[in-house]
Amino acid sequence: MKKIKVGIIGAGRIGKVHTDSITFNIPGAEVKTIVDKFMNDEIKEWAASRGVMNTSDNASDIFKDPEIDAVLICSSTDTHAQFTREAAEAGKHIFCEKPVDTDIDRIRETLKIVEKSGVKFQIGFNRRFDHNFRALKEASLAGKIGDTHMIHITSRDPQPPNPAYIKDSGGMFVDMTIHDFDMARFLSGSEVEEIYVQGAVLVDPEIGKQGDIDTAIITMKFANGAIGSIDNSRKAAYGYDQRAEIFGSKGSVYSRNDSASTIVLSTEDSVSEEKPLFFFLERYMASFAQEMKEFFEAIENDTAVPCGGIDAIRPVQIAQAALESLKSGLPVKIKY
Amino acid sequence: MKKIKVGIIGAGRIGKVHTDSITFNIPGAEVKTIVDKFMNDEIKEWAASRGVMNTSDNASDIFKDPEIDAVLICSSTDTHAQFTREAAEAGKHIFCEKPVDTDIDRIRETLKIVEKSGVKFQIGFNRRFDHNFRALKEASLAGKIGDTHMIHITSRDPQPPNPAYIKDSGGMFVDMTIHDFDMARFLSGSEVEEIYVQGAVLVDPEIGKQGDIDTAIITMKFANGAIGSIDNSRKAAYGYDQRAEIFGSKGSVYSRNDSASTIVLSTEDSVSEEKPLFFFLERYMASFAQEMKEFFEAIENDTAVPCGGIDAIRPVQIAQAALESLKSGLPVKIKY
Amino acid sequence: MKKIKVGIIGAGRIGKVHTDSITFNIPGAEVKTIVDKFMNDEIKEWAASRGVMNTSDNASDIFKDPEIDAVLICSSTDTHAQFTREAAEAGKHIFCEKPVDTDIDRIRETLKIVEKSGVKFQIGFNRRFDHNFRALKEASLAGKIGDTHMIHITSRDPQPPNPAYIKDSGGMFVDMTIHDFDMARFLSGSEVEEIYVQGAVLVDPEIGKQGDIDTAIITMKFANGAIGSIDNSRKAAYGYDQRAEIFGSKGSVYSRNDSASTIVLSTEDSVSEEKPLFFFLERYMASFAQEMKEFFEAIENDTAVPCGGIDAIRPVQIAQAALESLKSGLPVKIKY
Amino acid sequence: MKKIKVGIIGAGRIGKVHTDSITFNIPGAEVKTIVDKFMNDEIKEWAASRGVMNTSDNASDIFKDPEIDAVLICSSTDTHAQFTREAAEAGKHIFCEKPVDTDIDRIRETLKIVEKSGVKFQIGFNRRFDHNFRALKEASLAGKIGDTHMIHITSRDPQPPNPAYIKDSGGMFVDMTIHDFDMARFLSGSEVEEIYVQGAVLVDPEIGKQGDIDTAIITMKFANGAIGSIDNSRKAAYGYDQRAEIFGSKGSVYSRNDSASTIVLSTEDSVSEEKPLFFFLERYMASFAQEMKEFFEAIENDTAVPCGGIDAIRPVQIAQAALESLKSGLPVKIKY
Repeated sequence: MKKIKVGIIGAGRIGKVHTDSITFNIPGAEVKTIVDKFMNDEIKEWAASRGVMNTSDNASDIFKDPEIDAVLICSSTDTHAQFTREAAEAGKHIFCEKPVDTDIDRIRETLKIVEKSGVKFQIGFNRRFDHNFRALKEASLAGKIGDTHMIHITSRDPQPPNPAYIKDSGGMFVDMTIHDFDMARFLSGSEVEEIYVQGAVLVDPEIGKQGDIDTAIITMKFANGAIGSIDNSRKAAYGYDQRAEIFGSKGSVYSRNDSASTIVLSTEDSVSEEKPLFFFLERYMASFAQEMKEFFEAIENDTAVPCGGIDAIRPVQIAQAALESLKSGLPVKIKY
Repeated sequence: MKKIKVGIIGAGRIGKVHTDSITFNIPGAEVKTIVDKFMNDEIKEWAASRGVMNTSDNASDIFKDPEIDAVLICSSTDTHAQFTREAAEAGKHIFCEKPVDTDIDRIRETLKIVEKSGVKFQIGFNRRFDHNFRALKEASLAGKIGDTHMIHITSRDPQPPNPAYIKDSGGMFVDMTIHDFDMARFLSGSEVEEIYVQGAVLVDPEIGKQGDIDTAIITMKFANGAIGSIDNSRKAAYGYDQRAEIFGSKGSVYSRNDSASTIVLSTEDSVSEEKPLFFFLERYMASFAQEMKEFFEAIENDTAVPCGGIDAIRPVQIAQAALESLKSGLPVKIKY
Repeated sequence: MKKIKVGIIGAGRIGKVHTDSITFNIPGAEVKTIVDKFMNDEIKEWAASRGVMNTSDNASDIFKDPEIDAVLICSSTDTHAQFTREAAEAGKHIFCEKPVDTDIDRIRETLKIVEKSGVKFQIGFNRRFDHNFRALKEASLAGKIGDTHMIHITSRDPQPPNPAYIKDSGGMFVDMTIHDFDMARFLSGSEVEEIYVQGAVLVDPEIGKQGDIDTAIITMKFANGAIGSIDNSRKAAYGYDQRAEIFGSKGSVYSRNDSASTIVLSTEDSVSEEKPLFFFLERYMASFAQEMKEFFEAIENDTAVPCGGIDAIRPVQIAQAALESLKSGLPVKIKY
Repeated sequence: MKKIKVGIIGAGRIGKVHTDSITFNIPGAEVKTIVDKFMNDEIKEWAASRGVMNTSDNASDIFKDPEIDAVLICSSTDTHAQFTREAAEAGKHIFCEKPVDTDIDRIRETLKIVEKSGVKFQIGFNRRFDHNFRALKEASLAGKIGDTHMIHITSRDPQPPNPAYIKDSGGMFVDMTIHDFDMARFLSGSEVEEIYVQGAVLVDPEIGKQGDIDTAIITMKFANGAIGSIDNSRKAAYGYDQRAEIFGSKGSVYSRNDSASTIVLSTEDSVSEEKPLFFFLERYMASFAQEMKEFFEAIENDTAVPCGGIDAIRPVQIAQAALESLKSGLPVKIKY
C-alpha cells in the first residue's frame, strides 16, 4: 500500500502534535516535508527525530511537490485562508486548523475555491473526536435520551493567556468559545438560531482593559427547538473543566472530566480524587490523533470528511453574533 | 420548659408534613389546633393520631386563642396575605408557605403590618435548609472557592403537573422556578439585577396551550458582579434533578442528587446506581423539618428568622421579571 | 388504637436512641417506664423530656407492670440473659441488644425459655435495617446478580476504644466483628461453615498488650458454596468505613459509604467530597429507628420478627470460631 | 543517536503488542527481526506493515545477529527459560514475559546465567506500569496513608478461558493470580510470608473437572507486618474488574476501574455509566507501552530495570504456596 505523503505548514505546538500522530499512529501516511516561516535548527532536529528530512521556510516547497498528497495548515490564523487557497489550487487535500479566517466572506470565498478544486477539506475541531463527547453524541443518536431538549457545555480553562496574547486573539469567543460553539452544533445536531451572552470580567481586570471578557454564560436557541447554554471561564483553579450534557425527553447523558488516574485518597482531611487533566494537550491528545486518522481515512476511501466546510463557517458566525450580543446586551438572531 | 403552642391553617400535604415535624422532631413545640376550610373526619382522625384534638374550619379559632403562640399558614396561596395579616394583628408568630401573594404591592403591605406587630415572620423556602445546598453555601462562606463568579442551578421535576393545575398555577416561574430564584439569591449572597429567559414548550404541547412553558434556561446578573443560570424542565425522565454549583476564583463546589441508597449494580448490561429520590417530599423532607426547627428556635431565643420578609418579596419580583423577559424575548433589568 | 406500652432497661446511649425512636417515630408505641441500675436526676430529666415519668433502678418494676407489653434490654451484656429470661417469664415481648450472652449454652437455654413463653424475641443487629445493606440484599434476592459467589464486608471504626474498654469487651470479634458476622449471614443468605483469621496488632500496641487485635482479614466458606471476607480495622483515619459487596454469577452489587452531603469541592489542591459519616450513631441512626418499627409491627400483627433467636446464636458461634482460628493460626470448621 | 536494535521471539498477541509499542512509541529502539516457530505469510505481512523485513522461524537468527542488542521473549512459557539462557549467553539484553518457568529451581539457574552474563533482565509484570496502580504506589511512597496495614486486590476476568486452555495453563494461580501476587509485593513493598486460600469452583464445573478452581479469596501476611487479600474470579459478568486498595495508619487509597468514556446516562430505568474496559489488552495497553519504554531506558542509561530477577522468582513461589494451601486447606508459610 502506498503511503499518503503529507506536508505540514507550521511547526508550532499543534503542528508537532499532528506530526507525531501521523508518525506514530497512522501507518498509512507519512510526513514528507515540514515548513515553518521561522525554520531553525531546533525544528530541523525535531523533524529529523521523526524521520522527516525535508524542511523549509517556504510553503511552496510543499505546494509544488507532486509527491505530496495532503497539507496540514498549522500556521498562524492570518495565513490559513491563503494557504488553504494555494493548497486547493495545487490539488492537495487540506486539513486546516480552526478558524480558516475571522472574516466570514473570506472564509466563504476560500471554501468556494476548495470546493471547485475537488480536494478534501477538514477543519480542526478536534473535540468532536474526543471519546467522551463522542459517547454523548452516540447515546443521543441511539435514541437513548429521546428528543433533545437542552444542551449544556461547561468549558473552563485552567489559566488565562497573558494579556499580550489576548490582544491579538480576536477575543474569547473566537479564541476559546469557538470550540464550544462547534460542540453545541455537534451535540444538538442543529444550528444556533439565536444567542444571548451574559459576560463579565471576573478573572483578571487586565483582560477587561484589552476589551475582552473572561467569564460568560451564553444561551442559545437551536433550529430544532432545543435550547442550550455554554459556561466559560478563563480560569478554573482546579484545572481544565470540560464537561457537557444532553438532556432529552427520555433522560439525560452527561460527561465528566478525565483525570490521570482513578485513585481515591481518603485521609483525616478529605476523600479526594485526581484533578482534571491539566490542559488541552493532555485532555484532547487522543482526539488530535483521532481527527488525523479520520482525515486520512476520508482521503484513502474517498469519503466525506467528518468535519468540513460548513463546520468551518458556522462557529465563526456564531462567535460574531455572540460578540454583537455582548456589546448590545441583547439577544441576537443569527442569519446564515 | 413551656412548649410553644402552634396553630396550623391548612391540612393539605404540606400542613401535614409540618405537623409531623413539630410532633416528632421538635420537643419544644406542640400543635394545639388544626384548621382547614374543608375540615372532615379524615383530617380529624389524622390530627388525633398526632395528638391534636382541636380542629376547626375557621382560622379565627386560632387567632383568638390566647394560648397559641405561633401560626403556620399552609392554606392555598390566595389566602396567605390575609391570614398573615390577621395572625400579625393577633400577635402570633408566623410561618407562611411561599408565596405570600403574587402581587408585589400586596406582599409589601402585608409585611408592613407584620413588621409593625413585632412578631416573627418566616417564609417557607425550605431548600435553604437542605443539607446539600447548605453545604454549598457553607463552603462558599468559608472562603473555600474564593469570590463567587458563577452560580448554576439545575432544577427539573420528574413529571409535569396536570394541565388543570397549570392553569391556576401562575405559570412555571411562580409555581416552580420561584424556589430556584430564592436559591440563586441564597447561593450568590446577592440580588439579581438583570434576567433573561430562553423558554420553550418541549415536554407537553398542552402546557403551551395554557400559555405556559415547560423548559427554560434562565441567565442572571447579580449585584455583586457574579452571573448565573437556572435550568428548568417540567419532566426529567429519570426523576427529580436538584443540583447546584458555585464557581469562584479559587475553585468550584457542586452538589449531586440524593438517592435512596449508595449501591452500585454492575451487570452485563451496565454499571448503574440508584435514581434520584422521587420528588420534593422525598428529597426535601429533612429540610422541611429543619426549617421548622429553626423557626421555633428563633421564637424561643428571640433571634432573627433564617428566611424572612425580604426573602418573601424578592423571588416574586424576579419571577415577574422573568415572565416579562419571556414575553418580550429581551433581558430585563429588575428594579426593587 | 391502643398503643403498645414499652419498658426500657438501661438508659445508656443505645437505650436513649431507642427511646427517641419510639417517642418520635412510632405512633403505635410509647415508652412507659425507664429503668437504669444507676438511675439519677439527669436520666430522670431526660426521660421527662420524652414524656416518660416512670423511672426506677429496678427492672422488676417493668416485669411486674401488667400494662407493659414489651421490654427493650439495653443494659450491660452480662445482664442480657437474665433480663431476657425474666421478661419472657413475665410474658413481655423482648427486644435485646446483641449479644444475649458470650456463652453459647447460656444463650441456648435463655432462648428455650423465650420460645416456651411464646413472646416475640428480636436481637439488635441493626445493620440489617440499614438502607444500603438492605438494598444490596434486595438486589441479590431479586436475582439481579445471579447466584452468590463472594461476599466482601469492609468494616472499619474511626478510632479504637480505650484500652480499659478493650479489656472487658470480650475482644474485637465479639465487640465489633459480630455485626459483620451477622451481615455475612444476612448478605449470603447462608451459614458460615469454615472460618480463617489473619489478624494483627497494627493500630495500637496497647491493644495487643490486652491480648486483643485491632486489624483482621477474615475468610469464610458458606454452606451454599459461596466464599467471603471481612476486613476490620479499629482505626480508619478518614472515618467510619462501612461497605459491602455481593458478587455473583450475573454481576456484582456493592454499597459505598454515606456522608453528610453530596457536595464535591474542586480547588487547586484537590477534587474532594465529604468523609463518611463519623461513627455508628450517625451512620446507623435510621437503622435503629427501622429495627424498632419492625419489632413493633411484628408484635402488632403477630408476625415473625425480622431478626430472631437463631440470629442471636450464630454470630456468637462464629466469633468463637474466629477466636479459635486466631489462636491456632488455622482454619476452623464450625459445628452448629 | 543509534537506535537499540531488537529481536522479538514469538509473534502472538503479546509479541505484536510489544512490536507496536516499540515501533510507534519508542523512538530510540527498533525491531529488526521477528521470530516465530510457526512463521507464516500472515505474520510476515504484519511484520512488514511495521517495517520489519527480517522474519524467521529460528531464534538463533536473533542470537547470532551481532547488530541486535535486546531480545523480547514472547513465545510459549515452556520456552522462556531456554531462550533466556541463550539470549544471556549471546550477550543480549532480555525482556521476558512472565513466568520464566514454573519450576523454581530452573528459574534460579536461568537467572544465575543471566546475572553472570551482565545483561539486563526484565520480567513482564506489566501491571506495575499501569497508571492507576502506580498512582496507588506513589501515594503510599509519598507517605499519604502512613504505614501500610492492609492490601486488597480485586482481580476478576470477564470470562473464563476454554477448558482446553485451562488444562495446560498450570492452574489459575500461575496463569492469572500470578499478576496479583506480583501486585501484592509491589503495593506492599514487602514479601508474602504466609498465605491461605479459600478457593471454589463456582463459574464452570468443567474447570473443576480439569482440577482447577475459578473463584478464590486469598489472604496473605507480609514480612513488614501488613496483611492482605486477593479476590479472584474467572468471570465477572460486567467485565474486567481490576481494582486495588492500600489501607494504612493515616488513611486509604484505592483505584477504580477504567472505562471507555466518563459519560453518565440517566433514564427512567437507571443512572448508569460505562462498564470497565473489556479485558487486559484494552485495560493495560498503556502499561505494555510503558514497560517497554522503561526497559529501553534502563538499557540506554545502564540503570536498573524496574522489574527484575527477584520479581521473576517470588510470584512463582507464592503461586506454589497458594496451590499447596488450596490442596491442604491450611495456611502455608513461604520459605524463600
